[in-house]
Amino acid sequence: MPSFGRAGLILLLSIVIFSGIGYRWLSSYDMVEVEDKIEAPMKKWSPPTGQGKPPASCTCPAKSHDLAGSIPTANREDIQKRRAEEYKKHQARTSSILNTLLFAPSNSPLQYPIQGFTVRPLVPTLIPGTVSLQVTKGVLSLGSQSEAQSVKGGGKKLLILEKLSLEELNKLLAKVTYTIPVYHIHTGDLVHFSFELHEAVFPIAIRQPTVPVLFDMGTNISDQVTVTTKTFMRYKELKVLIRSLRQFYKDVVLIVADDSFTAEKITEENVLQYIMPGGQGWFAGRTLAVSQVTTKYFLWVDDDFLFTEKTKIEDLVEVMEATPELDVVGGSVSGSQFYFSIAYEEGDGVTGGCMDRKSKVKFQSLPNYPQCSIVHGVVNFFLARTDAVNRVRFDPKLKRVAHSEFFMDGLGQLMVASCGHVSIGHQPRGASAQYGRFRHPGKGDVQYKLQLHYYKNHLQCIHYG
Amino acid sequence: MPSFGRAGLILLLSIVIFSGIGYRWLSSYDMVEVEDKIEAPMKKWSPPTGQGKPPASCTCPAKSHDLAGSIPTANREDIQKRRAEEYKKHQARTSSILNTLLFAPSNSPLQYPIQGFTVRPLVPTLIPGTVSLQVTKGVLSLGSQSEAQSVKGGGKKLLILEKLSLEELNKLLAKVTYTIPVYHIHTGDLVHFSFELHEAVFPIAIRQPTVPVLFDMGTNISDQVTVTTKTFMRYKELKVLIRSLRQFYKDVVLIVADDSFTAEKITEENVLQYIMPGGQGWFAGRTLAVSQVTTKYFLWVDDDFLFTEKTKIEDLVEVMEATPELDVVGGSVSGSQFYFSIAYEEGDGVTGGCMDRKSKVKFQSLPNYPQCSIVHGVVNFFLARTDAVNRVRFDPKLKRVAHSEFFMDGLGQLMVASCGHVSIGHQPRGASAQYGRFRHPGKGDVQYKLQLHYYKNHLQCIHYG
Repeated sequence: MPSFGRAGLILLLSIVIFSGIGYRWLSSYDMVEVEDKIEAPMKKWSPPTGQGKPPASCTCPAKSHDLAGSIPTANREDIQKRRAEEYKKHQARTSSILNTLLFAPSNSPLQYPIQGFTVRPLVPTLIPGTVSLQVTKGVLSLGSQSEAQSVKGGGKKLLILEKLSLEELNKLLAKVTYTIPVYHIHTGDLVHFSFELHEAVFPIAIRQPTVPVLFDMGTNISDQVTVTTKTFMRYKELKVLIRSLRQFYKDVVLIVADDSFTAEKITEENVLQYIMPGGQGWFAGRTLAVSQVTTKYFLWVDDDFLFTEKTKIEDLVEVMEATPELDVVGGSVSGSQFYFSIAYEEGDGVTGGCMDRKSKVKFQSLPNYPQCSIVHGVVNFFLARTDAVNRVRFDPKLKRVAHSEFFMDGLGQLMVASCGHVSIGHQPRGASAQYGRFRHPGKGDVQYKLQLHYYKNHLQCIHYG
Repeated sequence: MPSFGRAGLILLLSIVIFSGIGYRWLSSYDMVEVEDKIEAPMKKWSPPTGQGKPPASCTCPAKSHDLAGSIPTANREDIQKRRAEEYKKHQARTSSILNTLLFAPSNSPLQYPIQGFTVRPLVPTLIPGTVSLQVTKGVLSLGSQSEAQSVKGGGKKLLILEKLSLEELNKLLAKVTYTIPVYHIHTGDLVHFSFELHEAVFPIAIRQPTVPVLFDMGTNISDQVTVTTKTFMRYKELKVLIRSLRQFYKDVVLIVADDSFTAEKITEENVLQYIMPGGQGWFAGRTLAVSQVTTKYFLWVDDDFLFTEKTKIEDLVEVMEATPELDVVGGSVSGSQFYFSIAYEEGDGVTGGCMDRKSKVKFQSLPNYPQCSIVHGVVNFFLARTDAVNRVRFDPKLKRVAHSEFFMDGLGQLMVASCGHVSIGHQPRGASAQYGRFRHPGKGDVQYKLQLHYYKNHLQCIHYG
């Protein structure tokens, strides 16, 4: 009857816990938590956030530059306030419940973290007090080797503590550290541990902290948004677009990616024109324009759009700022609010995945913005986070008609919404014959796009609904 | 004596496990594993990879395009082979031991996953059989409601099963599903569960699968690598660079970002010149050049470098292909192999972090490439993954002398190595007075850079060693 033998064992180990292993171990994390457990072990337990230790201020190396000091005292306070605001948003975007520290229930024989135990590469870090530990990538060791006779394998992948009284055991367990001896930005290790017949395993996340990259929202719309467009032999339309933009936004910067065969210099104020090799293509131009943006957001428009009193960039910024997890928010073009969702299955890893674009399919609406809903892709008029779009990028291989392809590449990486309350106009159509010849793709272009999906996206089929 | 009461409880629950809850629960994952446990519960246990189920082929929607069919039969086989190869590398880069399924030890009262239990947004997914479940974001429900009298809160955040024999209990437990009713690309939830006095919590990862974005390595070096550079009023040097490149690589594409005030047209074969607004700046040009790359890798060179017989691009490609987790690999310029590491502490979240650049400090050497070591930053001559560098990007705000700043922004995001066995030459220095005036930053530029670090990187100090 194994269950009885096992029960006996558990009884023994339960005593071990309450004699302090759980306590001793937890003590390096969250003391309050521990006391809760000891006084009222059955009280509902909620995990502490982070790894318990409050963040400590760091020490500046000798002769280092004092950066706050480099800012003119006049506007130092404003800048500090804005920085704090952006940093809060950055943390909201990067933190996850999946990084909080969780413990195995206190009535399992030994207490250990089942999630959220994170170490930095090359840095020795205290790990849960357990009795026999084994790891694959890192090394285990004890701060002091004084108790050498009872320790096997200090500084190795297997650590065994034996012939110890509970008091001795606890002394040692408080000193067990884990170190990954090589540098890596993001990996993990598993700790296998056992006490007599009891066994368990828990994960260690190994992570090099990243450096924040924040944008200064400044004080007005032109500090926050850059307008971007791509043109090809349509200077007439482009000039109409610029005139309409200036009616409403005097000094917002406009970036123009231009792959016309014979470029015409644009000399307007606050317009940055980039001249590409002729016919380099639609997505190449989009990617170029976005690469040059220095504001937190950019607004994408086509060169034949028309700004109207309904084109309130501020309203799109408001939606983005109120919803930090959003990356892209689209509006409507001359009244029509085009959006779609994408059904995607990875498939078996050999023949490839299946993709189905579904027009007019949306998900939940945004908190406080009933006129906006989560979708997978939007129309050619959208506000986006510069950093998020750079991570996905418009594939410069796509030379002609392409749009959904960006949102397909970005599926699972971008949170996209579509809003009905902001719109832009469209100029009357009347493209030159020469323009049309390039604008409208031949059979060759379509074939190329399908071949690209097959290889690049590892798809076996795609359906455009 | 609480520990005895607890022990009694554990004995009871241990019987429950072996009467099948653990079994029934595990059955939806890895049957072999379970049988191991039942026959030899003490056998060392290793977690199954993934969520147990073998990947299934997906079904193509009606009227969808058969993508393999779009590829000319002549080279279809080669392309399929290359695609499979790239996909394997992609999986190696994206998979992690931290996503493998782990279980709590079988001698804790109820068996449950402590890591790796992942669901897709909006998709109901079977979860571990436990007795009282509570979640915060998603809803819990039972496939069938026939046993209604014993179920409270189906389709809600709290599910209670009561007044059941073990057999009835197990029937129900096999049907409990978790669903997150809103769309999100990457978030999590916690399951709190209890049986009588026993309590535990485990995480659920909620993840929208991403679509692979693979590059075709093609058949020769010009399919794999694009050379990129930035020039500013140095056409003499640029032409020497191009001539030296063509001595060794006839048809590798060279992308030139040019922000000269008076642009001079470059008409060489396989050279793509992009004309920027005059004096737009150093990092703006780098970012522009990289944004236009369509190959898996790009080689960064300065416009006054000189290709020699020691500039073997293939050797850098070989190192990258052999080490899939690498993002950037640098060589040496006219004999000197410059590299550095960065010591970074986040600080307390208010005053900001501390950064220390340490020249000539490196980490472990690469497996099979003793002449290459992991570092944090390298010289202006490097091969890089196009996708990885786009995620970090060269900050276009940095107009003049800037280099380390890119690796600082990318700390924790890029795996960088420096190799001694590939090098490029440097042309004799002799810049024009006009060039020099722009090239060498004034005090203003230095101040600007410090202010940018303060805000953008949330630093309080920086030290250049």
